[in-house]
Amino acid sequence: MPLGDMRTPLLSNSFDTPEESLPCDPGNPTVGILGSGDYSRSLAVRLVACGYRVVVGSRDPKHIATGQFPDGVRLLTQREAMVSTEKVVFAALYPEHYHTLVGLRDVLAGKVLVDVSNATKLNSGEPSNAERLAELFPESRVVKGFNVVSAWALQTGAHDGSRQVLISSDCPEAKRTVIQLAHCMSFLAVDMGGLASSRHVEDAPLRLFPSWGGPLMVTFLLILFFYGYNFLRGVLMPYLSRGQNNFYQLPLETVNETLPAVALVILALVYLPGLWAAALQLVRGTKYSHFPGWLDHWMGRRKQLGLLSFLCAGLHAVYSMCLTLRKASQYRLLDAAYRQVNAGVEHSWEEPQVWRSDFYLSSGILGLGVLTLLAITSLPSVGNALSWREFTFVQSGLGYAALTLSIMHTLFFSWDFAFFSFAYPYYMPPTYLLALILPCLVLVGRLFLALPCLAFRLAKIRRGWESPCHHPPQTQEDTANGVLPRDLSGDV
Amino acid sequence: MPLGDMRTPLLSNSFDTPEESLPCDPGNPTVGILGSGDYSRSLAVRLVACGYRVVVGSRDPKHIATGQFPDGVRLLTQREAMVSTEKVVFAALYPEHYHTLVGLRDVLAGKVLVDVSNATKLNSGEPSNAERLAELFPESRVVKGFNVVSAWALQTGAHDGSRQVLISSDCPEAKRTVIQLAHCMSFLAVDMGGLASSRHVEDAPLRLFPSWGGPLMVTFLLILFFYGYNFLRGVLMPYLSRGQNNFYQLPLETVNETLPAVALVILALVYLPGLWAAALQLVRGTKYSHFPGWLDHWMGRRKQLGLLSFLCAGLHAVYSMCLTLRKASQYRLLDAAYRQVNAGVEHSWEEPQVWRSDFYLSSGILGLGVLTLLAITSLPSVGNALSWREFTFVQSGLGYAALTLSIMHTLFFSWDFAFFSFAYPYYMPPTYLLALILPCLVLVGRLFLALPCLAFRLAKIRRGWESPCHHPPQTQEDTANGVLPRDLSGDV
Amino acid sequence: MPLGDMRTPLLSNSFDTPEESLPCDPGNPTVGILGSGDYSRSLAVRLVACGYRVVVGSRDPKHIATGQFPDGVRLLTQREAMVSTEKVVFAALYPEHYHTLVGLRDVLAGKVLVDVSNATKLNSGEPSNAERLAELFPESRVVKGFNVVSAWALQTGAHDGSRQVLISSDCPEAKRTVIQLAHCMSFLAVDMGGLASSRHVEDAPLRLFPSWGGPLMVTFLLILFFYGYNFLRGVLMPYLSRGQNNFYQLPLETVNETLPAVALVILALVYLPGLWAAALQLVRGTKYSHFPGWLDHWMGRRKQLGLLSFLCAGLHAVYSMCLTLRKASQYRLLDAAYRQVNAGVEHSWEEPQVWRSDFYLSSGILGLGVLTLLAITSLPSVGNALSWREFTFVQSGLGYAALTLSIMHTLFFSWDFAFFSFAYPYYMPPTYLLALILPCLVLVGRLFLALPCLAFRLAKIRRGWESPCHHPPQTQEDTANGVLPRDLSGDV
Repeated sequence: MPLGDMRTPLLSNSFDTPEESLPCDPGNPTVGILGSGDYSRSLAVRLVACGYRVVVGSRDPKHIATGQFPDGVRLLTQREAMVSTEKVVFAALYPEHYHTLVGLRDVLAGKVLVDVSNATKLNSGEPSNAERLAELFPESRVVKGFNVVSAWALQTGAHDGSRQVLISSDCPEAKRTVIQLAHCMSFLAVDMGGLASSRHVEDAPLRLFPSWGGPLMVTFLLILFFYGYNFLRGVLMPYLSRGQNNFYQLPLETVNETLPAVALVILALVYLPGLWAAALQLVRGTKYSHFPGWLDHWMGRRKQLGLLSFLCAGLHAVYSMCLTLRKASQYRLLDAAYRQVNAGVEHSWEEPQVWRSDFYLSSGILGLGVLTLLAITSLPSVGNALSWREFTFVQSGLGYAALTLSIMHTLFFSWDFAFFSFAYPYYMPPTYLLALILPCLVLVGRLFLALPCLAFRLAKIRRGWESPCHHPPQTQEDTANGVLPRDLSGDV
Repeated sequence: MPLGDMRTPLLSNSFDTPEESLPCDPGNPTVGILGSGDYSRSLAVRLVACGYRVVVGSRDPKHIATGQFPDGVRLLTQREAMVSTEKVVFAALYPEHYHTLVGLRDVLAGKVLVDVSNATKLNSGEPSNAERLAELFPESRVVKGFNVVSAWALQTGAHDGSRQVLISSDCPEAKRTVIQLAHCMSFLAVDMGGLASSRHVEDAPLRLFPSWGGPLMVTFLLILFFYGYNFLRGVLMPYLSRGQNNFYQLPLETVNETLPAVALVILALVYLPGLWAAALQLVRGTKYSHFPGWLDHWMGRRKQLGLLSFLCAGLHAVYSMCLTLRKASQYRLLDAAYRQVNAGVEHSWEEPQVWRSDFYLSSGILGLGVLTLLAITSLPSVGNALSWREFTFVQSGLGYAALTLSIMHTLFFSWDFAFFSFAYPYYMPPTYLLALILPCLVLVGRLFLALPCLAFRLAKIRRGWESPCHHPPQTQEDTANGVLPRDLSGDV
Repeated sequence: MPLGDMRTPLLSNSFDTPEESLPCDPGNPTVGILGSGDYSRSLAVRLVACGYRVVVGSRDPKHIATGQFPDGVRLLTQREAMVSTEKVVFAALYPEHYHTLVGLRDVLAGKVLVDVSNATKLNSGEPSNAERLAELFPESRVVKGFNVVSAWALQTGAHDGSRQVLISSDCPEAKRTVIQLAHCMSFLAVDMGGLASSRHVEDAPLRLFPSWGGPLMVTFLLILFFYGYNFLRGVLMPYLSRGQNNFYQLPLETVNETLPAVALVILALVYLPGLWAAALQLVRGTKYSHFPGWLDHWMGRRKQLGLLSFLCAGLHAVYSMCLTLRKASQYRLLDAAYRQVNAGVEHSWEEPQVWRSDFYLSSGILGLGVLTLLAITSLPSVGNALSWREFTFVQSGLGYAALTLSIMHTLFFSWDFAFFSFAYPYYMPPTYLLALILPCLVLVGRLFLALPCLAFRLAKIRRGWESPCHHPPQTQEDTANGVLPRDLSGDV
């Protein structure tokens, strides 16, 4: 073993630990932790498991039960601990106690000080905790990081918690050190830039589904609009004009008329930005111009919109399947039986109605099935297993199949009723007509883009070709595998 | 490239392999494997893929088809292989053959011997295989590990199998070596302590859903109780007292009365321990005292309880949606039509019943929808993508929303029937009344804790504050980001 | 910190960056990228985040907006960039532009040249892009890799994209270098062998669900067969022989008769190959003989078959729950009420029919529930959390439970109808009889293998024992933990 023999004496001053020659070897550097709370304990557990030596500096090390820390961790006073630490120190105490550390300034000088604290409130506008720490310790190199990782994730390992760790620092070397440390702790470090970005990093754990805000608002507004419209058309107007009491429809029937309309419109909103982007690329003759901000933002929210559409469609399906459980439908059936008997009609069969109901049920079930497949592939662990082409096939191919089936479901449901004046009481068209406008436009737009001349030009542009009326071509510099970043591309 | 130039000559004695200067470089140490079975082959595949040199020691190396091992693996006799190995040797043969290796004691001396075997039966009480191996080879450093990883996971990489590898050894250096080796093989090593813990490690692959035992038992007992109660109240007593034959209800109706009661009680059991823990913290005035063992255990099983509650609720939904498919409901409807016609009633409509059925269906559907969201976030890959605050919002906020909707579903279903004596045949209250007790208590307890005075004190305690009647405060030592380990905290 | 002190001066020529002593240290090697398109940018983002120095070589570096690349990346001419690169160069440009690089042959000599391009069409039969690159640069060491990773996955990290990277090269050292680089970039490298395999690697991103082709074809053929059979038996023959118009059944009823039959047969096909393999092992008396290719292939498709069976069963459930929503079932019910009133029958109750419908609904619901659990455990993130024994329990134990419940569902549904001649119009047996043949055979085969004598012999064989009539035993060489690779084993 020539390599091992040569390496050991150079790198280590002891022959007792020849395993230093193994890969990923931390070489046993000693990492310090200031503070002895829950997070300090969890950091210690993780660092020890990854082969580091750990010293914990506490104000009062004698009052801490040694059983709380893993074996091998040394509990010292803060000063002793900092002296024993080689380079990296975690500051695992509340930001309001940072000033108590000022006495350690000399022993912390030159060291990498990792601030793991969270913001106490969102977008406060004040300097971040890390910036304040950097002010207190100008001779240390402050790095923000690990705050997005919970104590639980630290203790149990990456497969029980998010692997991503956001890192920011003004000192590139210190940042790289912490990035490598995070990597050895099985986290995936993401470089967020200078310490100014630490405000953003500290806010991260406080944010509540940031990417869902817009889509949820759109969904909420659509529900509000369609529910209001249905209420007006089906309940309030009949009551005001004819005194007809339809209020019993509010809890279930009106909801079940609203949900499919919302689901359909949102599904169209998933595919509209892709069409828009494709149109922009065609008009501009290049893929290298940036899209307007709102379009980029919209495209980044397609997954959320799709899942909300699926949620509405799923609820609509469950509501519909519960329709025959309602007392109302039971009463209606009994009354129909009464009328049929009194009228002496032996066979009530109406062939067109049978076909209509079977068609709209079938297309609805199949549409929901395809939407379910789409929803499943948006699970991280399933989506990750797909190749790029498979992902495109599912999201674009199956997506348009779901849209087409949903439109068919609505058309079969509405049948030819829209051609009779009774469908327009108080001059208000039926809900499904309103809900169909956008989806039909999207489908027509998609078919338009599938015209050979346009499709060919678009494919060329996506591969990097630029219209000559544009700035000089740079085809040779293009991406090698023609893969636009997923979801950022204008693929339709 | 100054760095590469300097490093290569120092670390390597050959200019032909300058790539040694790259990160994570194993420096090509040679790893030995004893045995040439399936597991040996899989280890070899993985080690070679990670850049190690591998020698396999077999009793009879000539009888092994070379195609079974990846290129570059050398097949030697056991002794030759052990001589070629630098430090780490995997013992990949059945424990009953360990004694055949005794002749290799000299060449194995000083080496790290990794025992990858499993126990043959659970909790045998005998010494573990690793302990017996350590007895046979007192001069080698035995490490237990990798037994939880299947041959399949070794061959295909971590994303097709659990990444966790449990490691135990009495020699810290040897343990660290294997931990680092596991890390380079893309596994996540978990230090389990000394070799005595190897019994536990060897038992791990034999255990069957250890965290599900308690919750499943609770669910089973609740199903037994409610099914028995429903059988007694709805089937047996009517038969005994009035000779009424309700036995046809057993396969479906009684089950569908049992499931929602069980789902509701289990959902309450998910949130009860959090309330209990909060109450304990309030009374004690600190979060640093340990909870009693049973409470810790219970809190660690909330996810399982929640999923079982979701399972019961989901089955109840499907059963209910199939109710109108039953012949029994069809016959009942026909008989009702017959009676209505004979009585000459033209309109059977009863407005309160219509409202009642729509309300309980709506709240039930929404409750199930919220439970479904909760269940989806408990999928590892989805939960991992959530920040701590999002996780809390989903588990606590949405969880109580689901509980409230489920209670509403039950209350609307039961309507005012409980105020009439016919609901108490044989002095037995209806099932839904029994099922409501615990959930209502939990909801009231939660509202009580939301009182500003209590909520404020609790928040203070959770942030590390301690009541002065307690032992000396240690606030400065607290966790920096205020994150209690998920699921271990008493968050409500 | 003795170790750090010694190491730094040796490995680095600067005292300003003492963090080089940390583990996983790239030592800041400089990686070069040729081309400045999307993929080049994404590679740069990722490499910089992992602590590498990056130079990008462009034909016209001045025309590139510097904001497109992360901070610290140097934009140079191609020649300058290649001179600054130490060892690894990514060729991130379209294969059709490879010839433009020929002038760089001298500065690329000896370097590792990574080809990241994709094939433009599947199975073209022509040399791969990597092979053509290797021809152009005989003095460079060409490695194929990274093409399966999208630009998006590079930018956002492994947890948003597949972690697997397929690598092939004729130069083992160069391959190992790139494998280690991929590892440091948090990807999981898989060694695919020599550069000849690069055709396969380049095709990978173009392939569309390769493992689903066979199972989908089987499902499609079964649907075709059963739908055709149902059409013939229930629609066409009655029309031809009696002029009965059943065509309205085609969109929903015939589909809903076809789906359960297909689901049942496919579920049997999931468990048939395991039985076959077990029988082969019993007959051969060893587990070391290879299974025939078609059986291996079939066993590798069991998961896909199981999911398709679940899809059909789920659609059948939804279709069935929508049955009472159909106009047809409404008309039938009204007509039945009419007949009942006219016949003066007060009670239509038929006890056996009530039991029958409740039994087949119950067993169907439970069977679907178990299938759902199976489908959930086949999600990568759930399956990964299971131990080998848990996986076996779920896939084998729960799988056979689902099969048994499905068979019971069918038997209860078919009741005793098959014993009457009216079930055989035109001498065609009912569909469910045809669908039951294979599942019943599989169940009987499984029970047969559970006979103690066979089960014991099989367990012995699976543990490595070989029948003496076979070639010399090699038990000592066996796998240590008795774990056959999951899904490759013939476990039943």
